[in-house]
Amino acid sequence: MTAPTSQDLLARLAAVIESRKPEAGGDPDKSYIARLFAKGTDAMLKKIGEEATETVMAAKDGDPQKIVYEVADLWFHSMIVLAAFGLKPADVLAELARREGLSGLEEFALRRVQQREKEDPQ
Amino acid sequence: MTAPTSQDLLARLAAVIESRKPEAGGDPDKSYIARLFAKGTDAMLKKIGEEATETVMAAKDGDPQKIVYEVADLWFHSMIVLAAFGLKPADVLAELARREGLSGLEEFALRRVQQREKEDPQ
Amino acid sequence: MTAPTSQDLLARLAAVIESRKPEAGGDPDKSYIARLFAKGTDAMLKKIGEEATETVMAAKDGDPQKIVYEVADLWFHSMIVLAAFGLKPADVLAELARREGLSGLEEFALRRVQQREKEDPQ
Amino acid sequence: MTAPTSQDLLARLAAVIESRKPEAGGDPDKSYIARLFAKGTDAMLKKIGEEATETVMAAKDGDPQKIVYEVADLWFHSMIVLAAFGLKPADVLAELARREGLSGLEEFALRRVQQREKEDPQ
Repeated sequence: MTAPTSQDLLARLAAVIESRKPEAGGDPDKSYIARLFAKGTDAMLKKIGEEATETVMAAKDGDPQKIVYEVADLWFHSMIVLAAFGLKPADVLAELARREGLSGLEEFALRRVQQREKEDPQ
Repeated sequence: MTAPTSQDLLARLAAVIESRKPEAGGDPDKSYIARLFAKGTDAMLKKIGEEATETVMAAKDGDPQKIVYEVADLWFHSMIVLAAFGLKPADVLAELARREGLSGLEEFALRRVQQREKEDPQ
Repeated sequence: MTAPTSQDLLARLAAVIESRKPEAGGDPDKSYIARLFAKGTDAMLKKIGEEATETVMAAKDGDPQKIVYEVADLWFHSMIVLAAFGLKPADVLAELARREGLSGLEEFALRRVQQREKEDPQ
Repeated sequence: MTAPTSQDLLARLAAVIESRKPEAGGDPDKSYIARLFAKGTDAMLKKIGEEATETVMAAKDGDPQKIVYEVADLWFHSMIVLAAFGLKPADVLAELARREGLSGLEEFALRRVQQREKEDPQ
């Protein structure tokens, strides 16, 4: 038996999220995710800002357990945003793999910094 | 850089990130990730705030390609923060799996809302 | 740049910002503000996310001088966003004064919490 | 009769905030501000992240009334953070005035961009 990959786990979570959409019968009175779908995009995006801030605070506290917890919250709410736009974690993983394939991630990121500095010449 | 062989993409990316730490010989002049490690935690955390904001803006634009791109940036920089604290994406996935196992994610999130409202009774 | 004479500091800063708009002759090669106007709204909003994150980090460090510095950055970039939408700091101050007049600020904020909790009954 | 300056108004709001501190007798059951003081710094900082995100969303919506409202929320919560660290809006205004005096704001901001690019030479 092989351990599930991160791809598998994220796909499973994405399936749970999909099943909470209103058109899939998600019930806002019973499901936190269904409630976010019912509230709409702004409510989800507000959570992205909140969870990013909590990740920053947990890291400033240097508390590993809290960091894991808050990054989990951040990724979880990112997946809800993805679902709201018909996207999947697999799309994000494909983008990360593409960058890795391009250049071991590094030249990719360096190119962005260089590009930014070309736009910001002073 | 050694060729990552894991089938698990996030584990493979985490290995690349580890190999860019100063103690692993990461060179800030050649590697974006090594440079973030050299700059320190605040530089990484600033990126979390930036990429979260860019995710929010991409979603407000309703541009699926940009959303994928910005969420990839957000997850990528989250992994750098994890690495800085000796953590791995697997820890985040384990936390997400734990929540899923507990309760289909949902009761977990609902409990948090209920707890917040107990603290915020007005 | 004409010498601002107003006794009101924020009004004076707002006048400087206005004078950097492209239609007022602001030069992106000489002026940081003019460059933000040239880049467009997203560039300004990204700064809001960045400066908010830096404010959070400065407060976690408990460094009063850095807190003042980062809040100044946050307010300064907020004023650029206001200007981009034809608004002024005076509009924000009027909104704050309105809340104060309504209710000593407090009932206002409490009402918002109550409203949020009514929407989030669980 | 002269209109109150922004300095006056912000000082008045700061005085209200001070009066809500626990040591000044602020009651967390009656006052939103007192409740934030009782909860502690992280609760206030979380609001900074939230209100910054809401400002970004309001600006993406291009809704002037919402922008004013959210910037007011952002400044208001900034003032609570300032108070928690024994600081005042006057300190922020002094920092903004210092920058204005130095250089019409502009060279100040440009110097920061130049410095960042010197540190980030690639």
